[in-house]
Amino acid sequence: MRIALLGGTGDIGEGLALRFARDTDHEILIGSRDPEKARDAADAYVQAIESDCPGGEPTVKGFANEMAADRADVVVLAVPPYHVGDTVEAVAEKLDADSILVSPAVGMKGDEDGLHYHPPGTGSVTALVAQRAPDDVPIVGAFHNLAAAKLSNLEADLDVDTLVVGDDASAKETVRRLATEIDGLRALDAGPIANAPEVESVTPLVINVARYNEDMRDVGVRFH
Amino acid sequence: MRIALLGGTGDIGEGLALRFARDTDHEILIGSRDPEKARDAADAYVQAIESDCPGGEPTVKGFANEMAADRADVVVLAVPPYHVGDTVEAVAEKLDADSILVSPAVGMKGDEDGLHYHPPGTGSVTALVAQRAPDDVPIVGAFHNLAAAKLSNLEADLDVDTLVVGDDASAKETVRRLATEIDGLRALDAGPIANAPEVESVTPLVINVARYNEDMRDVGVRFH
Repeated sequence: MRIALLGGTGDIGEGLALRFARDTDHEILIGSRDPEKARDAADAYVQAIESDCPGGEPTVKGFANEMAADRADVVVLAVPPYHVGDTVEAVAEKLDADSILVSPAVGMKGDEDGLHYHPPGTGSVTALVAQRAPDDVPIVGAFHNLAAAKLSNLEADLDVDTLVVGDDASAKETVRRLATEIDGLRALDAGPIANAPEVESVTPLVINVARYNEDMRDVGVRFH
Repeated sequence: MRIALLGGTGDIGEGLALRFARDTDHEILIGSRDPEKARDAADAYVQAIESDCPGGEPTVKGFANEMAADRADVVVLAVPPYHVGDTVEAVAEKLDADSILVSPAVGMKGDEDGLHYHPPGTGSVTALVAQRAPDDVPIVGAFHNLAAAKLSNLEADLDVDTLVVGDDASAKETVRRLATEIDGLRALDAGPIANAPEVESVTPLVINVARYNEDMRDVGVRFH
């Protein structure tokens, strides 16, 4: 399968690229507004993976976002929340009913107390993606609450859950299985997109927990 | 220490009463609007604990809410969210700067997709308690995301975290330590009351996770 990480030069994109490329056989397409930057990042990711796991043959290539989206089966919007709408619109005509568009971004605002969940008017970033994308493209929310620094540290055991939401059962199951292919990551179903706000809210929470508890950093969550 | 559980005849009150009375040496005061009902519940809890753990001498007694609050060092508002404001007002004159008022309630609304976080206008139930209680009474949010059925099943290992919020560091630390005295429960600091919405949002989330994943029920959460 081909997985595009739009904004794949950013921190969450880097982490997902490294983990998918190391732990699975899928082809990883790094997307960026600047294709040169995407190719440089892809090369750096391949080096990092080969250094961690010599002899693997990770496939990571860089493209402009539109090209990455066009070539991929699963398109992950690994961009900051305020770029999500624009990025969806930039790649919209490359998507169709056979694509799956995945939203990991979370709207937050910070003050002296910590980070707070700050969703767009649609109720969640995942719902914003659903509103902006062509109607026939299946939308799935996933990978929200993963600490980018832990993903990118290939020596770290993840041992965490991610929560998956979506209204298209088949697309949701595809993304759930894909996520589970990453070592140490379990993907749980959290229901339809209407349940995305409670899922997205976990991101500021784990950051607050890391801030207020000694010896906790890059905090993840396990449900049982 | 004396711990009052107002609304202690309800499901979360029952669970906390059983666990505190079995696992700690604290005196547990069950509060209800109907003191007869509180006494009956207290007797039933003592029987349940003695059946689980013969030879223990649990101290659980029933009172009217006002009397329970008057006698206690720590007062837990184990009532449904729509009764929190009234209950605080009913016991307000029994509280002072030496009391600690603990809020475990969460506003939720359900639809066909699942449960959704539905806070009061103050931003969180914990903030509502802070608004309604006398100014000098320290307020702590805790025990939100514990499955009542699991708490009440004394044979179940908890193995879960609860998140504690509060603006009074000393009161927050007292409640954090108290919570940790329950076997299998770890209490993490989630910061000031301003961070309560992200903490309270975990309750609908764990209920949604239980609904959408086979073989998961009474779902709890662990951070690491």
